[in-house]
Amino acid sequence: MLTLHHNPMSCSLASLFALEEASAPFSVVTVDLAAGEQTTAAYLALNPKGRVPALRTERGVLTETPAILTYVAQRFPQAELLPLHDGFEHARAQSFMSYLCSTVHVAHAHRMRGYRWVDAEDTAALQAMQRKVPENMAACFELIERELLPGPWVLGERYSVADPYLFTVTRWLAADGVDAARFPRVQAHAARMAARPAIARALARLAP
Amino acid sequence: MLTLHHNPMSCSLASLFALEEASAPFSVVTVDLAAGEQTTAAYLALNPKGRVPALRTERGVLTETPAILTYVAQRFPQAELLPLHDGFEHARAQSFMSYLCSTVHVAHAHRMRGYRWVDAEDTAALQAMQRKVPENMAACFELIERELLPGPWVLGERYSVADPYLFTVTRWLAADGVDAARFPRVQAHAARMAARPAIARALARLAP
Repeated sequence: MLTLHHNPMSCSLASLFALEEASAPFSVVTVDLAAGEQTTAAYLALNPKGRVPALRTERGVLTETPAILTYVAQRFPQAELLPLHDGFEHARAQSFMSYLCSTVHVAHAHRMRGYRWVDAEDTAALQAMQRKVPENMAACFELIERELLPGPWVLGERYSVADPYLFTVTRWLAADGVDAARFPRVQAHAARMAARPAIARALARLAP
Repeated sequence: MLTLHHNPMSCSLASLFALEEASAPFSVVTVDLAAGEQTTAAYLALNPKGRVPALRTERGVLTETPAILTYVAQRFPQAELLPLHDGFEHARAQSFMSYLCSTVHVAHAHRMRGYRWVDAEDTAALQAMQRKVPENMAACFELIERELLPGPWVLGERYSVADPYLFTVTRWLAADGVDAARFPRVQAHAARMAARPAIARALARLAP
């Protein structure tokens, strides 16, 4: 049995989507990030990084979105969520997921979590970071729109776990001050994602 | 035939190490980052991200270190550089590589590339970022030392592409103002890496 420790306002939504796409048996535990639950001793014993997502498996706890998505795809092969047996296509999927975690998510995080990279009291520096977030997020999505999204899915004709990950990050654009209408391919991708039954099931789990 | 576009002062060194470990037939092209070669039209045609590494293959160009490392491991299975057929162990390797690219490399980049996240003229904000780099890099390596490096290798007894990636990032500690002697397990790992013939061959390629 798998247990996903997550928060629906975070990138861990991608892992929830992937588990639903795989029709995996799993339970979810919501981590109250606003209350600082991720820094309690109990949570740090599960995930010493103090972040979400964390996926508890029979063999241990996995962290980092690209790793959890890869694990879900590999554990539930009938869902065909990664081209694991085609080295080049698999690498393309890993490349896209790496770009999201190392560049796009990082660009986004400078809006609300700038204290990770400067003194938390340095209001001027925090505001300087926030001012650049719309420009950086727009640049990331311009690249995705132009180069990285052949459509209908990230890998082309084949759906993969890279798609729920992109969908998760796309949902951040409005709050980051970027008009998603600038990116019609990305918008069409988000509409296709929202129409998938597994995604609707995942979002229903989050309803109060 | 594979061609690695790289710069030895960057994270692309990990890809060079992995190609040598795989005994892969490949050539290297050095990208002069100081001269801005990564932003020329010729390079952007190869890699629109304007970064290194980029690996040219017969089927297209791959970018992002975790993806290139995964590709090398999968293309040269006799080198046994990833436990691709064990979903949990594979995910552990992907998790470690994701942590390096999304957290550790990002912490490091705030020293010399802070202009990615604030206005390039904002000297005070750039300096605020630089001041926090030693603390952040030390925190990352404390976590690696305590939780993520069972030894002798990242995955335990089994060597993988996660090891040259860690070795590459460990080499940045001194310039980032962190005394590597604080992390004896990491130091022992670096010493084991430096003693591997493939690593010595890769470093010899870089000699003038």
